[in-house]
Amino acid sequence: MYSHILLITCTDETGLISKISTTVFEQGLNIIVMREFVDPVTNGFFMRCELSGELEIQSLYNELRTKLPANAQIVINPKRKKDIIVLATKEYHCLSDLLTRHHFDEINANILAVISNHDYLEPFVQKFQLPFHLVSHENISKEEFEKQILGLANSYKPDWLVLAKFMRILSASFISEYQNRIVNIHHSFLPAFVGANPYKQAFDRGVKLIGATAHFVNEILDQGPIISQKVIHADHTFSVKNMVQAGHEVERAVLFEALNLVLEDRVFVAGNKTIVFA
Amino acid sequence: MYSHILLITCTDETGLISKISTTVFEQGLNIIVMREFVDPVTNGFFMRCELSGELEIQSLYNELRTKLPANAQIVINPKRKKDIIVLATKEYHCLSDLLTRHHFDEINANILAVISNHDYLEPFVQKFQLPFHLVSHENISKEEFEKQILGLANSYKPDWLVLAKFMRILSASFISEYQNRIVNIHHSFLPAFVGANPYKQAFDRGVKLIGATAHFVNEILDQGPIISQKVIHADHTFSVKNMVQAGHEVERAVLFEALNLVLEDRVFVAGNKTIVFA
Amino acid sequence: MYSHILLITCTDETGLISKISTTVFEQGLNIIVMREFVDPVTNGFFMRCELSGELEIQSLYNELRTKLPANAQIVINPKRKKDIIVLATKEYHCLSDLLTRHHFDEINANILAVISNHDYLEPFVQKFQLPFHLVSHENISKEEFEKQILGLANSYKPDWLVLAKFMRILSASFISEYQNRIVNIHHSFLPAFVGANPYKQAFDRGVKLIGATAHFVNEILDQGPIISQKVIHADHTFSVKNMVQAGHEVERAVLFEALNLVLEDRVFVAGNKTIVFA
Amino acid sequence: MYSHILLITCTDETGLISKISTTVFEQGLNIIVMREFVDPVTNGFFMRCELSGELEIQSLYNELRTKLPANAQIVINPKRKKDIIVLATKEYHCLSDLLTRHHFDEINANILAVISNHDYLEPFVQKFQLPFHLVSHENISKEEFEKQILGLANSYKPDWLVLAKFMRILSASFISEYQNRIVNIHHSFLPAFVGANPYKQAFDRGVKLIGATAHFVNEILDQGPIISQKVIHADHTFSVKNMVQAGHEVERAVLFEALNLVLEDRVFVAGNKTIVFA
Repeated sequence: MYSHILLITCTDETGLISKISTTVFEQGLNIIVMREFVDPVTNGFFMRCELSGELEIQSLYNELRTKLPANAQIVINPKRKKDIIVLATKEYHCLSDLLTRHHFDEINANILAVISNHDYLEPFVQKFQLPFHLVSHENISKEEFEKQILGLANSYKPDWLVLAKFMRILSASFISEYQNRIVNIHHSFLPAFVGANPYKQAFDRGVKLIGATAHFVNEILDQGPIISQKVIHADHTFSVKNMVQAGHEVERAVLFEALNLVLEDRVFVAGNKTIVFA
Repeated sequence: MYSHILLITCTDETGLISKISTTVFEQGLNIIVMREFVDPVTNGFFMRCELSGELEIQSLYNELRTKLPANAQIVINPKRKKDIIVLATKEYHCLSDLLTRHHFDEINANILAVISNHDYLEPFVQKFQLPFHLVSHENISKEEFEKQILGLANSYKPDWLVLAKFMRILSASFISEYQNRIVNIHHSFLPAFVGANPYKQAFDRGVKLIGATAHFVNEILDQGPIISQKVIHADHTFSVKNMVQAGHEVERAVLFEALNLVLEDRVFVAGNKTIVFA
Repeated sequence: MYSHILLITCTDETGLISKISTTVFEQGLNIIVMREFVDPVTNGFFMRCELSGELEIQSLYNELRTKLPANAQIVINPKRKKDIIVLATKEYHCLSDLLTRHHFDEINANILAVISNHDYLEPFVQKFQLPFHLVSHENISKEEFEKQILGLANSYKPDWLVLAKFMRILSASFISEYQNRIVNIHHSFLPAFVGANPYKQAFDRGVKLIGATAHFVNEILDQGPIISQKVIHADHTFSVKNMVQAGHEVERAVLFEALNLVLEDRVFVAGNKTIVFA
Repeated sequence: MYSHILLITCTDETGLISKISTTVFEQGLNIIVMREFVDPVTNGFFMRCELSGELEIQSLYNELRTKLPANAQIVINPKRKKDIIVLATKEYHCLSDLLTRHHFDEINANILAVISNHDYLEPFVQKFQLPFHLVSHENISKEEFEKQILGLANSYKPDWLVLAKFMRILSASFISEYQNRIVNIHHSFLPAFVGANPYKQAFDRGVKLIGATAHFVNEILDQGPIISQKVIHADHTFSVKNMVQAGHEVERAVLFEALNLVLEDRVFVAGNKTIVFA
């Protein structure tokens, strides 16, 4: 329906929507769907509009630039499939879901390539005629390892990197090149279990729910802004292995949900939180 | 946070948001949260804004009136608890939930009174010091029955009527006096069961889910615009009685969810559908 | 953990569990998990035991046969992956999920082959090195069509046939050859919509939930014993196409859930209902 | 349907079910529903049977006693409403749910009394004609405080104590008098937040799910065996207050779910875990 998405974030002030919508109107565009939110804590203004009409991106951008506060971030995205690179290690459950959906055009993205630090998933990726790049972390420094991955990833000019169970911790310098553009998932529990082997701890404690969190990656491990969370049922008949399997199911589901939100430009990052216009 | 809610529906045309937000801005108001949606089938425009600032309702209304299409419906509600009347018969499960939440200020409404065609629930209502009106349907015509209820209800000037398992079918003329202002719930199944005793049919069929639907009442029984739907689990150990109990649980939950949406002016009716800005 | 599953159904009478468990004990076996249920309506007795120990199937069967009522059905299954044949037409969403899970050993079954009345899914099936059999329904009688499919299916001696969006209605005679051994899924709504294009009807009605039902196939279309049901959320922003996609998601999920139950011998059929020892 | 529930736990050995079911049979009883589970880690045997027939409790107990291992715990409960005492402080959301359901006979328990360390909830409890006992913790030692509560509770001979947001930490000596007979609930998050004001932390982190856990109380705060867990949705529009309200909703729901399981003797404690025959 819509042809472009307009995203604006800035400090809130009276009249912002008037300025934005009047500018949009003067360019002859229609607003199909609008979501706006002012964060009462930070006074941040967040807006997402789906626009239709003949749109000159640069012209609209320039007009908005002159009218909006200096700190405004203005993004105008034509409706298009976003380009993503998937990073994985050996676990297949998230990768296979993405590749199968991609194959049948069920996910609103082009998967440009898969990068992995192991070759285990290469045969599966090849079934889908997608580039698979092996970058082993062995025998090289972390710096060199990340440099190689960045080189490969950058060559594709992706919109987002998706960590589909990529088991290497990324450095702050790597992350800074894809600020709020790396999506990761990890399992979680109620309560959380600190230390080694959380599934074993969850088993020992007899948890009845296993959770998973999708988030943007920042410099603190697994502590970036949360995009989406889901849980799955467990019971006393579950072995540790069953719990791991259930964890895989919910990781797969939460990654797909989060990606759908991200790929449609529905997620804003505000400090360590997200605004999600679902 | 907000002081008023602004609701607008009309036929969509380019520039509507610009007109509305500029008018709002010129009155010195800020838009805290905005949701807008254009129905691609009917070309209907729906908008809900949470406003803050010193607001002159009549002045804002007049300004919007002159600028918006002639068919525009403009509603400006100060932030306040809405007034509701609850109609019930003998089943307590929805009524008791509403009264308890009302007692502890957990629902954003004033329950002004309970009207029932049986006296069974009177002692319970009295615990909460609320007016209870008995209007028996026996020995009087349906016309007279409804006239008495309408007289009572109107005397309270409620915003909405809530049918909390009110087991009398309302006539079209009754409904027309509270167009899209009567909320009802009924159970539902996958698949649906037509005819008498649907719970017995659901039991015989071994359904694994029992559902409930909250909707606005229109002239077609249980076919009005859907506000909210929920399901609850069932299994082979459930007797018919257990299924009825599960149905009560999910009816109670879906009514509370739907009322929360309605009481915050988040639900628009568009033909036989709703637009819900949850 | 367990080596065999013992399944018994018969008319209930006092002492059944004593007879069964004593027989099992006398054969030197241990019962790891037992589930038993007596249907209060039909007086049917249903039992599922997970056994461990050195088990002589014929010997245990013979002993139970002599001790249990004449109408007892006694099944003793060694722990093994069940063999299934998947029937599909053109929709890929259920098939691709099963094949991917099968490839990664995530489903407790051997998929022996895929049979389809269209060639559309052949390239996808071939990625997974599985036999694909095309049996077109065109230019031949339904009788001949089903005979060909049965011939193919029987040649694999499968435990179950799985209809993963197989869009041909099977005759009673076909079904009778795989009595309670054909698993199907179909979408459902609250309320149900009768007639053509239910998704369009659901869209017109603005439903908030889309459901799916997995069931055994019997001679009445989509009315066989229900194994599992699930729902997924919908809202006013969903187009008919979005609703169809949501329907696919929930069909895929409910089929996987139901198959997991069936493949672990957790589902009994009792008349038109199921007993599910989940 | 059933007249008694038989619960047995002991170390597993071959032939246990045979011994138990034969003993039950010889007493002329029928087993309507049986659940059995052997914990593969501890080799613990857990069984729950619903029995029907003319049952002599002492006689059945004695027979089982002689046949089962010395460490067997044997419980035979006639079908009856269990007696519970509810402890609360000032939060009403769990208490009001229990009292309302109790009033309408929706919960399978007799609430004998409410004990609180504040008088805030007294008027509400009095609406339901139930004893309310105020035991202030002020100006007395913890020892004396607990002694008074125990004295009151013991005078009712309850089956279980239910902590419906009772905000005092109980000592190990108190707990030992009601070993695995005190049910508590607390909120939880994904991830967990350690330290003061977890809701504020959850708000700052932008969590998308808020959870609650019902558990038996042991000597480690909020770390007893988990009975049930649930989650509820949250999003960026939630204030800290909204998050607290959502937490209340899910605490209320998980307490009701857990109590239903406990009241039907469906929960076994095994070390720090539960076996739940739901």
